[in-house]
Amino acid sequence: MFAEHLAPLVIQNDKKIVMLIMDGVGGLPLTPDGKTELETAATPNMDKLAKAGTLGQAIPIHIGVTPGSGPAHLSLFGYDPFKFFDGRGPIAASGVGVDVNTGDVACRVNFCTLDEKGNVIDRRAGRISNEIALPIVEKLKSIVIPGVEVEVAHVREYRFSIIMRGEGLDPRIADTDSQQTGVPPLKVTPTDPAAQKTAEYFDLFLQKARELIKDEPKANGMLLRGFGTNPSLPSFFDRYKLKAACIAVYPMYRGVSKLCGMDIIDFEGTYPADEFKTLAEYWDDYDFFFVHIKKTDSTGEDGNFDGKVKVIESVDQALPDLLKLNPDMLIITGDHSTPALMKMHSWHPVPVLLSASERAIPDEQSTFGERSCSKGALGTIHGTDLMPLILAHADKLGKYGA
Amino acid sequence: MFAEHLAPLVIQNDKKIVMLIMDGVGGLPLTPDGKTELETAATPNMDKLAKAGTLGQAIPIHIGVTPGSGPAHLSLFGYDPFKFFDGRGPIAASGVGVDVNTGDVACRVNFCTLDEKGNVIDRRAGRISNEIALPIVEKLKSIVIPGVEVEVAHVREYRFSIIMRGEGLDPRIADTDSQQTGVPPLKVTPTDPAAQKTAEYFDLFLQKARELIKDEPKANGMLLRGFGTNPSLPSFFDRYKLKAACIAVYPMYRGVSKLCGMDIIDFEGTYPADEFKTLAEYWDDYDFFFVHIKKTDSTGEDGNFDGKVKVIESVDQALPDLLKLNPDMLIITGDHSTPALMKMHSWHPVPVLLSASERAIPDEQSTFGERSCSKGALGTIHGTDLMPLILAHADKLGKYGA
Repeated sequence: MFAEHLAPLVIQNDKKIVMLIMDGVGGLPLTPDGKTELETAATPNMDKLAKAGTLGQAIPIHIGVTPGSGPAHLSLFGYDPFKFFDGRGPIAASGVGVDVNTGDVACRVNFCTLDEKGNVIDRRAGRISNEIALPIVEKLKSIVIPGVEVEVAHVREYRFSIIMRGEGLDPRIADTDSQQTGVPPLKVTPTDPAAQKTAEYFDLFLQKARELIKDEPKANGMLLRGFGTNPSLPSFFDRYKLKAACIAVYPMYRGVSKLCGMDIIDFEGTYPADEFKTLAEYWDDYDFFFVHIKKTDSTGEDGNFDGKVKVIESVDQALPDLLKLNPDMLIITGDHSTPALMKMHSWHPVPVLLSASERAIPDEQSTFGERSCSKGALGTIHGTDLMPLILAHADKLGKYGA
Repeated sequence: MFAEHLAPLVIQNDKKIVMLIMDGVGGLPLTPDGKTELETAATPNMDKLAKAGTLGQAIPIHIGVTPGSGPAHLSLFGYDPFKFFDGRGPIAASGVGVDVNTGDVACRVNFCTLDEKGNVIDRRAGRISNEIALPIVEKLKSIVIPGVEVEVAHVREYRFSIIMRGEGLDPRIADTDSQQTGVPPLKVTPTDPAAQKTAEYFDLFLQKARELIKDEPKANGMLLRGFGTNPSLPSFFDRYKLKAACIAVYPMYRGVSKLCGMDIIDFEGTYPADEFKTLAEYWDDYDFFFVHIKKTDSTGEDGNFDGKVKVIESVDQALPDLLKLNPDMLIITGDHSTPALMKMHSWHPVPVLLSASERAIPDEQSTFGERSCSKGALGTIHGTDLMPLILAHADKLGKYGA
């Protein structure tokens, strides 16, 4: 849709856009008459923006569909996830600086713990630290598979990526993670006969890896997920004429931003205030800033309602640092919902706050929350419609027809 | 969309879903400051569910498009009506146990009353009873058309089906019902040249039928509608991994359910309480129950505002029998609107009530009605999005991407 009809309308100007994403911000009340995490949090700064701006709610992927982080961010960035999402392996690999090119096959891998019978007893190997994981990944780098080039790259803690390069590779391979414990990892199985050979390469890798790590106390097995090849995304600049930067702590979000052609900014610290400080430092260098807050999601996944409330409050407290930069267009939203009640991502619509001085029609809502957003003037829109809306509010999307 | 992207996400579990459809439930106020039928009806049980659950409104086919019952139900069941609906004839025939296979052409037929000039004076032949209609249908079964096999099947009261089987048949034929009185029935006219021969077969049938029924006091003519062939729907189980049952009085709804692969449950009685009693009896045997209430639509079509209010109230009064089964997911909605004011189906959005314990965010609405639903947290969604939403609320739709 965008490439075909909207891209020709894009206008380049010097207005500045900030997309502030609180990962998994959407929530649910713990009791039927209770409030959600976002409704509970004291957010005087966001409420002020909500009062002056426009609210709405977004469906990241499809009504009823729970988004994974990769496709959810593609949607935020305006890329149809059904078209562009191609397994999270390439996105994760890209996030740690490994190029995944067309024809390569990448997957992401969790170390796991196997019992003596070979059954998975911990799908994340006790969430081993970087210090423990790095030397094990180093061992795996010694593996040679005749016929293909293999690259192994550590991502974070118990997670790493395997990338294979060579002729005739095909990413249509099922996950070996059954998402359960008490059973062995699944075999490497092609979902299309054309991927048979590729599956054999990965299986051979697993056989060799097993020998190398069999005596590890925790990381003595591995689970492969998200096989894919380079999603070949059109860049943010090609699509939107935006010089874009990513300010994010976690590799996954840096990875998907890089795939979209954003510059990835390195910085110290992990708090919202650190991210806003970085934003200020680079303010003159870019038109578009993607600022990612991870801990709203992590606390949600942990079922930590109060913790999630506190993270949201910490973002609100730091917000004046962002606001004093006076962005022409600020959107605050999430990539999906992660209700603490459910301890997982969910399909619920995501609250959206558009703040763009006189360009956003003020609705009658004066707080930023799920239910105020459900009554906001934007209505319920698809995640991929946010980018055109943002461009419009920054006077960057022209008229269709004369 | 569903088949391609969402079907791989479906998870089978033992949670139970009830889809309670009040046919044509949506309405309009009789005066600008009045209430609709649903808003007028005393529905304490539904209001309680509305308060705890989530409301919204659904567009069955397309904004501005008045749905027929067949495509409206396909939409409710998640099948794109523009893709799968192929005339109502096959659906009606399927509802009375006649198989319509690919290549067959079926249409539904109303007996009508013609005056001495051959003009239609009653499009439904005085709504003659089964007792009067059945022997006339028997007479029609004697008709032989060289070159094709003809089957005639009584549906209900003044309605029946004609099915033709043979080589080279084509369903692209226009209705002979002009929807008016005071004019003769239209000729059997192909809308595509390829259907010329098929149109001639049906025309020959009409010529022979005219002779057989010309002395009937009421049913001395007939109007043909909804020519179509087998829509070949993917089954509910194939799509949703749901073992599904239909509890409906009228053949049309049983027919479309059967086409979707649901089991059709036979039961005594025609009241909502009878249907809920049947639901309880079969509770252990299925994952999904489609329960259809017809009389909200019939009273609407009759322009009987108060009658429609009473039918809605009768559903509400019987509702505790359903609620005590404690369904994991209950949706109450309609297939379309039938405002008594208009005496016909209409294009207006249909009120939707989702009741799914803690999975549905309670919006601030506390009654079930058109205007509360238009302000509900679900927003305005397409009818075909209800099934993904229902699956999600019953934990039957997994994450897209990791």
